[in-house]
Amino acid sequence: MNDTLQLLQTHRSVRSYADTPVDEAALAQIIEAGRRSPSSFNAQHLSVVVVRAAAARTRIAELAGGQPWIARAPVFIVVAADAGKTAAGVAAAGAAQQAHRSAELVVACSIDAGIALGAMMAAARAQGLAVVPVGGIRRNPRAMIDLLGLPPLTFPLCGMCVGHAAADAPLKPRLPTQAFRHDERYDADAVRAAIPAYDQAMLRHWRDVGRPDGASWSATLAEHYSRDYFPGVGQALREQGFEME
Amino acid sequence: MNDTLQLLQTHRSVRSYADTPVDEAALAQIIEAGRRSPSSFNAQHLSVVVVRAAAARTRIAELAGGQPWIARAPVFIVVAADAGKTAAGVAAAGAAQQAHRSAELVVACSIDAGIALGAMMAAARAQGLAVVPVGGIRRNPRAMIDLLGLPPLTFPLCGMCVGHAAADAPLKPRLPTQAFRHDERYDADAVRAAIPAYDQAMLRHWRDVGRPDGASWSATLAEHYSRDYFPGVGQALREQGFEME
Repeated sequence: MNDTLQLLQTHRSVRSYADTPVDEAALAQIIEAGRRSPSSFNAQHLSVVVVRAAAARTRIAELAGGQPWIARAPVFIVVAADAGKTAAGVAAAGAAQQAHRSAELVVACSIDAGIALGAMMAAARAQGLAVVPVGGIRRNPRAMIDLLGLPPLTFPLCGMCVGHAAADAPLKPRLPTQAFRHDERYDADAVRAAIPAYDQAMLRHWRDVGRPDGASWSATLAEHYSRDYFPGVGQALREQGFEME
Repeated sequence: MNDTLQLLQTHRSVRSYADTPVDEAALAQIIEAGRRSPSSFNAQHLSVVVVRAAAARTRIAELAGGQPWIARAPVFIVVAADAGKTAAGVAAAGAAQQAHRSAELVVACSIDAGIALGAMMAAARAQGLAVVPVGGIRRNPRAMIDLLGLPPLTFPLCGMCVGHAAADAPLKPRLPTQAFRHDERYDADAVRAAIPAYDQAMLRHWRDVGRPDGASWSATLAEHYSRDYFPGVGQALREQGFEME
């Protein structure tokens, strides 16, 4: 089978890292995959911040809600929306940027951040490195902004650990294709019908990996999504200049 | 060089497609790469809609602001935020979803849409197919929602054409690494300093590809970003139940 397809279809999030450092050359290849990713209007309204300093990674591990793998993996890469970069371009052409006031720009930057993060995760794994994507930096966006010196019109959207795996990670079951792929028109019945069997598959998965206290997909979601989780995101976006009109 | 790295570092957006159809087997591999992508909390709050029908693709080409390659390429894949799927999971666990009211959920779904879109683009290119990502479906979100039968708590975020290239596409220059990568702390001076040379590189690029009327990066951004572009996104998100609080 095509190695690239195989890599893309077997994403594993690794949370157990060895002490081995990450080569600068390997890191440069990862960053290059992010830099070369396509973006809306070729706007390139993203910046990445590479964090190697142990004290900063320890702080991020706390800010992300207690994710010790961030302190342990030698490199953490933050992907930030960067409408300050595009504002500088617009200003260079003698105009004033308005687009950052719209919900559209937050959506566009977030999609582009996902494309770049995905490319960087695949580029790391293609070099034998391990990764885990991290959304938890959005628990405390203001503290992340201060830590990284992020200026107005930027926002820390997501991040990833990079390192050498200390242990294999299992492939996690996903909802089946009929709950993901629709042909021509959306099929709500197919989505709902898939949930009970998937809940059972997740419970089996947790038992198989030695975590018998693991919850079903539905129960995990009910815990997080029945409340306003990461409630500081909207306010911090607005404070940074993203009004989401 | 590692084939996967090479593929990720040479993304080309193809806008010229042959009539050759896309095999169902190749399409299934593409969708599988999207389905297996990681997501925030393993929430999997995405759905994709595969559009093959020519009339629908012609309509999407118009709604996206006149993008004839959508009508021409045999397959168009829409990636939609799907907080209806997670709401069904939360309900299956006896609770009521609140998370879709927060700006966080729009950001999380958009990042995850980008990760899945990027994986699907790479999976297509790894099979010798050509792609172009499309954000223009957000010009007319309400019409896209109606066309695809998308229910409340879903939103069409982005899409991609898939087909066989009729002509090679050039690699577009990007801003240099010093305007993308920051180490430990954000460096605004490095970003601003890179813009004049990049504007010249884009002008040379347009001349090289036979489009001497092409504008610099700054001038292109000034045209789009000095006004509230795609102004319907915020309202359509709110109508679908994403309040962005």
